[in-house]
Amino acid sequence: MLLAGRRVVVVGGGQVAQRRLPALIASGAEVHLISPATTPAVQAMADAGEVTWHARPYQDGDLAGAWYALVATDDQAVNEAVSAEAERARVFCSRSDDAAAATAWTPASGRDAGATVAVLTGDPRHSAALRDAIVDGLRDGSLAARQYRTRGAGVALVGGGPGDPDLITVRGRRLLADADVVVTDRLAPRELLAELPEHVEVIDASKIPYGRFMAQEAINRTLIEHAKAGRFVVRLKGGDPYVFGRGGEELLACAEEGIPVTVVPGISSSISVPAAAGVPVTHRGLTHEFTVISGHVGPDDERSLTNWEAAAKMSGTLVLLMAVDKIGAIAARLIEYGRPADTPVAVVQEGTTAAQRRVDATLGTVGEVVAAEGVKPPAVIVIGDVVNVLAAAFRP
Amino acid sequence: MLLAGRRVVVVGGGQVAQRRLPALIASGAEVHLISPATTPAVQAMADAGEVTWHARPYQDGDLAGAWYALVATDDQAVNEAVSAEAERARVFCSRSDDAAAATAWTPASGRDAGATVAVLTGDPRHSAALRDAIVDGLRDGSLAARQYRTRGAGVALVGGGPGDPDLITVRGRRLLADADVVVTDRLAPRELLAELPEHVEVIDASKIPYGRFMAQEAINRTLIEHAKAGRFVVRLKGGDPYVFGRGGEELLACAEEGIPVTVVPGISSSISVPAAAGVPVTHRGLTHEFTVISGHVGPDDERSLTNWEAAAKMSGTLVLLMAVDKIGAIAARLIEYGRPADTPVAVVQEGTTAAQRRVDATLGTVGEVVAAEGVKPPAVIVIGDVVNVLAAAFRP
Repeated sequence: MLLAGRRVVVVGGGQVAQRRLPALIASGAEVHLISPATTPAVQAMADAGEVTWHARPYQDGDLAGAWYALVATDDQAVNEAVSAEAERARVFCSRSDDAAAATAWTPASGRDAGATVAVLTGDPRHSAALRDAIVDGLRDGSLAARQYRTRGAGVALVGGGPGDPDLITVRGRRLLADADVVVTDRLAPRELLAELPEHVEVIDASKIPYGRFMAQEAINRTLIEHAKAGRFVVRLKGGDPYVFGRGGEELLACAEEGIPVTVVPGISSSISVPAAAGVPVTHRGLTHEFTVISGHVGPDDERSLTNWEAAAKMSGTLVLLMAVDKIGAIAARLIEYGRPADTPVAVVQEGTTAAQRRVDATLGTVGEVVAAEGVKPPAVIVIGDVVNVLAAAFRP
Repeated sequence: MLLAGRRVVVVGGGQVAQRRLPALIASGAEVHLISPATTPAVQAMADAGEVTWHARPYQDGDLAGAWYALVATDDQAVNEAVSAEAERARVFCSRSDDAAAATAWTPASGRDAGATVAVLTGDPRHSAALRDAIVDGLRDGSLAARQYRTRGAGVALVGGGPGDPDLITVRGRRLLADADVVVTDRLAPRELLAELPEHVEVIDASKIPYGRFMAQEAINRTLIEHAKAGRFVVRLKGGDPYVFGRGGEELLACAEEGIPVTVVPGISSSISVPAAAGVPVTHRGLTHEFTVISGHVGPDDERSLTNWEAAAKMSGTLVLLMAVDKIGAIAARLIEYGRPADTPVAVVQEGTTAAQRRVDATLGTVGEVVAAEGVKPPAVIVIGDVVNVLAAAFRP
C-alpha cells in the first residue's frame, strides 16, 4: 500500500507504536498518534516533527480521512471501538492485541537487493525469523531470482551426486537454477529436473540422435552449439564429472571451441552409495586405502586397462562401478589372484534413492547372488572388511 | 489486507483481470467486475458465481463502498477516472497500466509451509521471479526459519567438502543451519562456521583437552554428552566422513549410547582437489580406476596397511592424502616396485580455497620439489597420466 502523503492514525503510544512508527514514517505517511502518554522514544519522534501527537484519549471520529489505522493500546475496549470505527469508515486496521480481529496485518518485512519482502504466518516470531532468513539469502546471493543475478557463461559440468537430489552441492544447485539449457542423462538425479523453471530447455543426452560410437561426440556438439548461441548450459551428470563421467572429454571439446567451462564436483557414488548402505570405504585399523574401478569392460576384455592382479593384491577396499554384468568374472579373477573367497561384498542398487536395496554376499558367491537376486544397474559393489564394520550400529 | 467479505471492484475484463481474479476470489473478497466484455475465462468465473459481472462501462460512483480497486482497462482515460475516484473515496487502487500512479500494488505473492510471502520490487517480473525463488526455498526446506522447522535429533556426521564453503551438499548445509552445537576441526571449511547464528556453540575438536592418543575418544565423548543433553549436534568434517574421516568410529561410539546418527557424505578432497587443479582422476583411454591412499604412515612404517608393491603395479591414478611429509619415501618405493620415475605428479595445496597452489613434478622429483617449494599440509598428491591430460584446456 502506498501510504506516502496519506493520513495514518495510530492509537496508543507504547512499545508497539514505538516499534511500528519508524516504518510508517519511512513510508512517507502523514502519521497522527493519538495517546494520552508515550514512551520517550515516541516523544522524540513527535518532537522531531515526524509524527503529529494528539496527547489525549481516542474519540470516535478520529479515523476521519484516514487510509490506515494501527491500534495498539492496552485497553481492549478502546481497541474494539477503534476497530469498529475503522470498519464503518472502510479503513484498513491493524490490531496488535488481536490479529484475528484485524483487517490488515503488519507483515514482517525487510529490504535488500532492491526488493521489499513481506512475510506473514500465524505467528509474528515465525514471520520475523522467516523474514530474516529471506533477507539473509538476498544478501548473500543464495536466494536470487535467476534472471536478475550474475549469469554464468558457457558450460558448467555439474556433478549431480548419487541420486538423492539433496546431495548436489550448494554451488551445483545454484548453477542449475541459472541454466538456460540442461543436458542430462540417466544417472543424474531426476528430481533436480522437476525443480527447473518451465522455460529451461532440458535435453536428455541419452536421446540425442547419433550413430554408432558417436554418443559422446553428439553430446559435445550439443553443449557447444547451445553455448555458442549465448545460452548458459549446465551439463548435469550423476556422481562426479571426473569419476568415469567423461567430464574431461567435454572440457576439452568445449575448450577447443573457446567456450569457458566451469567444473563443479559432485558426490561420487563410489563413496556415498556404500555410506548410504552403512559401509565406510575406509575405517581405522582395517584399511588405509580404497580403489575405485570401472567394471564396464571385464577382466577378460582386451580393452581393460586395469591390472586385476595388482587390484587383487591391494589390501584395502575395492569399489566397483558399472560392474553388475561382469561381477562374476571379476570376482573369479580377484580370487584367482589371491583375494580370499570369503571377503565380504555388499551390492547396493540405486543407492541414496527411495529404491535403495543392499544385497550381501562374499567374493565367492557374489556372481550367483547378483544373478539370483536380479540386481540391476545402477549399482555399486564394495568389497572388503569394511562391509561389515558398522553392522552392529547402522540403521538404514 | 483482509479482503474476505469486503467489496472489491475490478474495472476491465481482459488478460490482466483474468490473471488477478483468482487470488481475489481465493481471498474471499466480494468481487465486482465492471467491463462491457470479458475473456472466456473471466466469463466462466462469472458464470460460476465467483465474481459479479456488471456488463457495462465504468461510471463514476462504481467504487462506492469498495475497500480496494483494481484498474485494468486498455483505455487510459478510464483508468485515470477510476484512479481519481479511488483517491477521493479513500480506496486503495492498483493500476496495471501505470504502477507509479497506483496507491496499491499487487506484490508477487506465494504460499508454502504455512507462510505467505509478498515481494515487491520496481519490476513485476523481478518480483515474480524472486517470489518463485522464495517459495521454492520454502518448499524444499533450503529456506526456513531454523527454530520453526523439524529439528534433527542426535548427531549428524556431515562432510563439509574440500574447503570451498559452496561445496557442501544442500543437505549438509541445511543440517548445519539446524545445529545447536557444531563440533569442527581444522580441515572443515571455516567459512561455513561464520554463517552460523550466534547462539550456536562451536567446539573446535582440535582444542578439546585430552591426553596422549585420546583425541578420538574425547571427541566421541563430546558428541555423546551434547546429544544426551538434548542438543542437535553436527560433527562437521573436511571432505567426506568416511574417507579417512573416522566417521565410522564416531557412528559406533554414538550407537553404543543409543544416539541416532545421520551420515551426510561430503565432496572428498581426493577427487575434487585434483579437479580444481585441472586433473580428472579418470579419463577415457588413460585409466579405468583410481586408488586413494592415506600417507599418514609411510611405506617403511610397520603400521602401514597398504601393499605398496601392488599400488605401484596398479595401472591407474594414485591419489595420496596426508602424504606431504612422506612423499619422498612413498615415491621412492613406488619407483622401486616399477612405476616409471617420469610419471607425472601434481601436488595441490589447500585445493578449492583462495590459497590453492599447484606444484608439478614427476615421481622421481616430487620428494625434492615438495621440500624445495615448501609445500605444507593440507595437500593432495595425484600421480599418473591424468595429471597432464587437460593441460592444454584447463584455465584455473
